[in-house]
Amino acid sequence: MEKVIIKDLYRKTSDYIDKDVEVSGWVRTLRDSKAFGFIEVNDGSFFKNLQVVFTDSLSNFEEVKKITISSTIIVKGKIVKTENAKQEFEMHANSVEIFNLSDSSYPLQKKRHSFEFLRTVAHLRPRTNTFSAVFRIRSIAAFAIHEYFQNNGYVYVNTPIITCADCEGSAEMFKLTTLDLDKPLPTKDGKTDFSQDIFGKKAFITGSGQLHGETFAAAFGKIYTFGPTLRSEDSNTKTHANEFWMIEPEISFCDLEQLMDIEEDFLKYIVKEVLEKCPEELAFCDQFVEKGLIDKLHRLINSNFVRIDHKEAIDLLKKADRKWEFTPEYGGDLAKEHEKYITEYYNGPVFVKNWPKDIKSYYMKVNPDGKTVAAVDLEVPGAGEIMGGSQREENYDKLVSRMKDMGIDTDQLYWYLELRKYGSNIHSGFGLGFERLLMYITGMENIRDVIPYPRTPNNCEF
Amino acid sequence: MEKVIIKDLYRKTSDYIDKDVEVSGWVRTLRDSKAFGFIEVNDGSFFKNLQVVFTDSLSNFEEVKKITISSTIIVKGKIVKTENAKQEFEMHANSVEIFNLSDSSYPLQKKRHSFEFLRTVAHLRPRTNTFSAVFRIRSIAAFAIHEYFQNNGYVYVNTPIITCADCEGSAEMFKLTTLDLDKPLPTKDGKTDFSQDIFGKKAFITGSGQLHGETFAAAFGKIYTFGPTLRSEDSNTKTHANEFWMIEPEISFCDLEQLMDIEEDFLKYIVKEVLEKCPEELAFCDQFVEKGLIDKLHRLINSNFVRIDHKEAIDLLKKADRKWEFTPEYGGDLAKEHEKYITEYYNGPVFVKNWPKDIKSYYMKVNPDGKTVAAVDLEVPGAGEIMGGSQREENYDKLVSRMKDMGIDTDQLYWYLELRKYGSNIHSGFGLGFERLLMYITGMENIRDVIPYPRTPNNCEF
Repeated sequence: MEKVIIKDLYRKTSDYIDKDVEVSGWVRTLRDSKAFGFIEVNDGSFFKNLQVVFTDSLSNFEEVKKITISSTIIVKGKIVKTENAKQEFEMHANSVEIFNLSDSSYPLQKKRHSFEFLRTVAHLRPRTNTFSAVFRIRSIAAFAIHEYFQNNGYVYVNTPIITCADCEGSAEMFKLTTLDLDKPLPTKDGKTDFSQDIFGKKAFITGSGQLHGETFAAAFGKIYTFGPTLRSEDSNTKTHANEFWMIEPEISFCDLEQLMDIEEDFLKYIVKEVLEKCPEELAFCDQFVEKGLIDKLHRLINSNFVRIDHKEAIDLLKKADRKWEFTPEYGGDLAKEHEKYITEYYNGPVFVKNWPKDIKSYYMKVNPDGKTVAAVDLEVPGAGEIMGGSQREENYDKLVSRMKDMGIDTDQLYWYLELRKYGSNIHSGFGLGFERLLMYITGMENIRDVIPYPRTPNNCEF
Repeated sequence: MEKVIIKDLYRKTSDYIDKDVEVSGWVRTLRDSKAFGFIEVNDGSFFKNLQVVFTDSLSNFEEVKKITISSTIIVKGKIVKTENAKQEFEMHANSVEIFNLSDSSYPLQKKRHSFEFLRTVAHLRPRTNTFSAVFRIRSIAAFAIHEYFQNNGYVYVNTPIITCADCEGSAEMFKLTTLDLDKPLPTKDGKTDFSQDIFGKKAFITGSGQLHGETFAAAFGKIYTFGPTLRSEDSNTKTHANEFWMIEPEISFCDLEQLMDIEEDFLKYIVKEVLEKCPEELAFCDQFVEKGLIDKLHRLINSNFVRIDHKEAIDLLKKADRKWEFTPEYGGDLAKEHEKYITEYYNGPVFVKNWPKDIKSYYMKVNPDGKTVAAVDLEVPGAGEIMGGSQREENYDKLVSRMKDMGIDTDQLYWYLELRKYGSNIHSGFGLGFERLLMYITGMENIRDVIPYPRTPNNCEF
């Protein structure tokens, strides 16, 4: 008898109608009456379950009726077309073998559970519909990201996580050590003796792969990173985690306008792929997580992203007939309420570009006005800022002087500066927090619910 | 005039013959004589360079002759067919614009450099042929890995890097902290006070995502991880690094024999993809890094991997007419020399399975003989062990008793044990060090030369 996966039963249904097949999976629900019953089985291959009908013709009928939620079973039977609109087919079981009867203490019995509770059983929550949908979408979106870049000639670069340079501002960087922290630290001349540590000096975890990424873009033209990022921010919000995944492409021979073309093309590709490959998961999220989700995603891929200067954005906010909690300022950042207003005003995604230089990073190219930098944030309806990018300063002297102005150590970053000495070019890049994107695509409101095992201040379970 | 990338000129040559195009890139070499010269330009899109011919008809001919290696230029000209066997086409330049003249201190002038030297300029080495080939192959292989799993219904899971469980044996685990290491550590009751640290307790970096991966396999059937792994081993060898990338698939409803089928299929897929997508890079590595490399890879994909028991392997070694540095033992591990002999004896890849349980991990399924576990190592010619996997112990009581025997804390791992209570199933998984695979595929002999920025004891530059 052919062993099949449930995905194939759904995707190639006609191949299996009236055929006997075998399926191994987990019991999601079981209903029974006197002479028959229904089991919803899931084998992990697909978001939806297989409905199995069993009757008292089974030799172990009484046992089968008592199968507990989350038990592992092997069912054999015929796939039969149904007249039911909700269910195109079902299996009529010839045998139900119980491989492992789940303990009745299983915490996810059939009822709604809060996301807060489900975080306490993070090892079991992927078995629920919501998290099955979210983590399938996460996987499909991750692959779409790789596909987009590979199809467009980018080289995937694994930039290092460990660094001994603290030039990023070590406040947000974790320290990494092999020294014994259960004892007093070794000292030499009154200072901690890091020569005894594995790298012979103080080590950190980087918060970004951009600088290393730029070195590879100067060889391969177009590169991208996609990996975990650890930041030690002591920030307990719905959008912050101490461990998350980030995508950082870097493109040579590319200015700010071309960068926005790429960002728009990229984002639309990812959303299209998820719409195409995860219809069942998105339909579930649309119904139970965020009403109108699928419409929102279709609107995104069909819109032309607006491009406005930061100054225009502030003009717009100042003119608005609104009382702001945070006053919009020409020299300042955009608050959440401002981002919301702007995307609602344009009824779609908006690139806000040419930001005041004083609130942006040293590596961004200063515009001819001397006051703004060629930076761009993409604001999307419902999620606010989702990507941040810039054209990089390619002029050696200008970059050095800006680093000195901002107190950045030029000695430690000699290798980064050398990119401007040995074949500098106009280049740009952006960063995208993967979880922010997933929150936007799934409608989930808390970053803890789009990461398999979230790490946040005072929370590092499992 | 059409802006093109060099890859398109090579892959769709006929589209461009006799057309005027524009290319931006870096000067790799320049040769000139009185009235003309040749520039090899690379734009990063392709392993090979574009040969540009220029003559004294250029208004800036004297300047162009003096262009330094690694300068950035924009060339416009006609693509012309050549009679040269080495070079199917070249560009006859109408104009050569110098965007950035590279400083003459550029350390990679045209001559051979040792890999040791090139590690000291890791930010520039991707511009050399060898590292251009290696890191392109790395990117293509990484994507092939994602493709293989996605095409076969696996869900990509990002398991956490930060953990507060030290049950893996903290000797090889880095400690992660936000405490100020430049001052004495805070204490309470004579012990370090980790309640002041960000997670409120001692935190580590995990050395494996397997256990977390298993929790997701119990929901999605088939999953894989692919991310960086940090281990604090103080080991200075050609095959050890403190930061490397690892792939860990985990498959439900899969026993050891099925696992070997998957491992074989997986490895052949990756090698086939690299052979197909990187012919130029592999030809270079075959010529300059490992003679016979391409033949080796073809032999791998055309072979049937042998499967023998650990006991048979030891029998074979004991019978061999050889003096061993390390005596083969029925209860012991295989030394490098043993692995080499076995793959040479069978003239191809060999799965060695059913290992003595005392030298293997607690989570591996104990065989009915009570002495061996259902573990398997794949040995390949020239590289030795490249993948390690096992069927996992799915029986709750047996797993608990084995953990107790081996001194593993069952309390901390309650969530892992619960997988055996709530829908346990026969499942298996394997681990693959990405860099080991890359060393095998490229022929590079030092792990430091297949990682963009290697981190090894006392070495954490850039």
